[in-house]
Amino acid sequence: MRTTVGWRAEPSNGTATTPTLRRAPLERRDLRPDDLAVRVDYCGVCHTDLHALRAGGGTDGGPAQPDPLVPGHEFTGVVTATGSEVTRFRTGDPVAVGNIVDSCGVCAMCRVGQENFCHAFPTLTYGGTDRVDGSTTLGGYSREYVVGERFAYSLPAALDPAAAAPLLCAGITVWEPLRALGAGPGTRVAVAGLGGLGHLAVKFAVALGADTSVISRSPDKAEDARRLGARELVVSTDPERMAAARDRFDILIDTVSAPHDLGAYLRLVALDGTLSHLGHLGPVTLETLDLLIGRKKLSSAGSGGRKGTAEMLAFCAAHGITADIELLPSARVNEALDRLDRGDVRHRFVLDLSDLDRSGPQGPTDG
Amino acid sequence: MRTTVGWRAEPSNGTATTPTLRRAPLERRDLRPDDLAVRVDYCGVCHTDLHALRAGGGTDGGPAQPDPLVPGHEFTGVVTATGSEVTRFRTGDPVAVGNIVDSCGVCAMCRVGQENFCHAFPTLTYGGTDRVDGSTTLGGYSREYVVGERFAYSLPAALDPAAAAPLLCAGITVWEPLRALGAGPGTRVAVAGLGGLGHLAVKFAVALGADTSVISRSPDKAEDARRLGARELVVSTDPERMAAARDRFDILIDTVSAPHDLGAYLRLVALDGTLSHLGHLGPVTLETLDLLIGRKKLSSAGSGGRKGTAEMLAFCAAHGITADIELLPSARVNEALDRLDRGDVRHRFVLDLSDLDRSGPQGPTDG
Repeated sequence: MRTTVGWRAEPSNGTATTPTLRRAPLERRDLRPDDLAVRVDYCGVCHTDLHALRAGGGTDGGPAQPDPLVPGHEFTGVVTATGSEVTRFRTGDPVAVGNIVDSCGVCAMCRVGQENFCHAFPTLTYGGTDRVDGSTTLGGYSREYVVGERFAYSLPAALDPAAAAPLLCAGITVWEPLRALGAGPGTRVAVAGLGGLGHLAVKFAVALGADTSVISRSPDKAEDARRLGARELVVSTDPERMAAARDRFDILIDTVSAPHDLGAYLRLVALDGTLSHLGHLGPVTLETLDLLIGRKKLSSAGSGGRKGTAEMLAFCAAHGITADIELLPSARVNEALDRLDRGDVRHRFVLDLSDLDRSGPQGPTDG
Repeated sequence: MRTTVGWRAEPSNGTATTPTLRRAPLERRDLRPDDLAVRVDYCGVCHTDLHALRAGGGTDGGPAQPDPLVPGHEFTGVVTATGSEVTRFRTGDPVAVGNIVDSCGVCAMCRVGQENFCHAFPTLTYGGTDRVDGSTTLGGYSREYVVGERFAYSLPAALDPAAAAPLLCAGITVWEPLRALGAGPGTRVAVAGLGGLGHLAVKFAVALGADTSVISRSPDKAEDARRLGARELVVSTDPERMAAARDRFDILIDTVSAPHDLGAYLRLVALDGTLSHLGHLGPVTLETLDLLIGRKKLSSAGSGGRKGTAEMLAFCAAHGITADIELLPSARVNEALDRLDRGDVRHRFVLDLSDLDRSGPQGPTDG
């Protein structure tokens, strides 16, 4: 086995607080013929990381985490070693990895490049089960990751590697529905929520040529929305503004992470338009009439396939798009998670993992 | 006022049974300048008629009907008189009327020909409120109807007037979503349920060139499905057949009128495909994951606009499409409603209103 170091949480003890991540040595598998070893330089901090940390006995009340958890599923780095049959990468290549590291490769979804919807379930970058040895995957909050080359992406030189990291989860999650729904010149797109997903959705929609607006509870987001390229801010707590925006948007990208009323958003969707509900994964209840009147559609999406991810990275390189990030040394990961939980981020935290090379007390350690 | 005769239910007395319709004299308004008087020859019996009759104190537990109810909102007949400013019709013209008889005419939905989604609410053919005098509209289970010419449609001579009547509600309700979703050559369409809506959806999808299947609980619907032009029947109670049909259909037209699990149908929808939920109007609950995996869409639709209705009638004339009906003298209306309630119809009852011209006891009367 290879050894590296990362930020690890012990199996949850059932308390409602987010477990503290501690610096710890980690094992990575020896390279298989198609594997790359990647030095992880930058890893984004995703809402999913918070949910996963709490899944033990936290506020979600989910099942206990059976294994130690190393989060992180949107990262960039450099190839440091390659397996004997690797063809697409060489040592020294800049690469990016997202939240999927394997899939069956043969089902209908894999065959059309939507490995994220693999009928046999894609292998998640952390907390997933390796298809070969059955081990639990450990994520990118670490200095090295070993990944099959199918799920590594060339990182375009035009993109800042730190600010590009969030493209691999937040970015692709909004990119694929925008493309599938035809966002472009002549379409009107609204983005609800301006977090990690939302601010990238605005940048993409604007660069694709769509007439783009932002929906937010906070009037003070107006300047931010304009800076990102949006035409206007629709304040969702203002009934007059909401009524004036009725039936206006062909595509509404809903990135709000708390449960909320979908009817209010559906009323903003145009005839035959679509509300893509991305921020919240629980069950939803809605009135059929909110779909019927205007023949509106409710959809969702998550993550992306290899084809879409490569296309998104090329588009970002061509249009100079990366995330707006706050870069922190990885030793401040617990602070980042705490601030993310409070919504105190603009628009995505990215961890700089290079501090893991230095020994000594950059943070609590149990290794 | 003009006088005619029809089948009327008294305001519900709060019992759980369907009120009995009785033969009764009815008043129709004197013709306004843009009105037509229509001799109603044939009127389809729609599930909505059952719901409306029970809305008083029936099984739905809805609010009491304030007025006597005359159902019927898909009918064909002949123009017998025209108002002074009518331009599109003359006495003797065959016409058809659906479930909408007026709309505001100026909102965004009306301007694009979707009067059925009028922001100021369309006036329903029965149980609606007339926009001029505030009276409650009385439906097509009667020998005469007075309607503004905007909401009357020329009935093509190629279509049998009795079998064409159900096109005006059942037909248009499935026609518009099929068209909006792009049913045609190269698309795979499934139709769940083979009632009034479902059997017309199969005929339309086949005639539009789509590869069409039927989904039903009953294996014994296979012959009927094939006769209507479908390629196959997917038996929804057979887990193996359902699993084999996973992700197969670009468009799934769901006409099942009882509440049911949408997840099972969503799993049959293809990547980026749409489940159009038409048969049941209540609230729906679903798992976001059933939309997320495969980026699927849930939609609905109801009735149609003037433009779509005229297009549908022209398409039906060109392709020889009408409903499969069981034609009954209108005096047997209560029997028809009872059998519809029990699902004993193939595929739509149509009332022949000509028996109302004869005096004498064709049925119970209070007139």
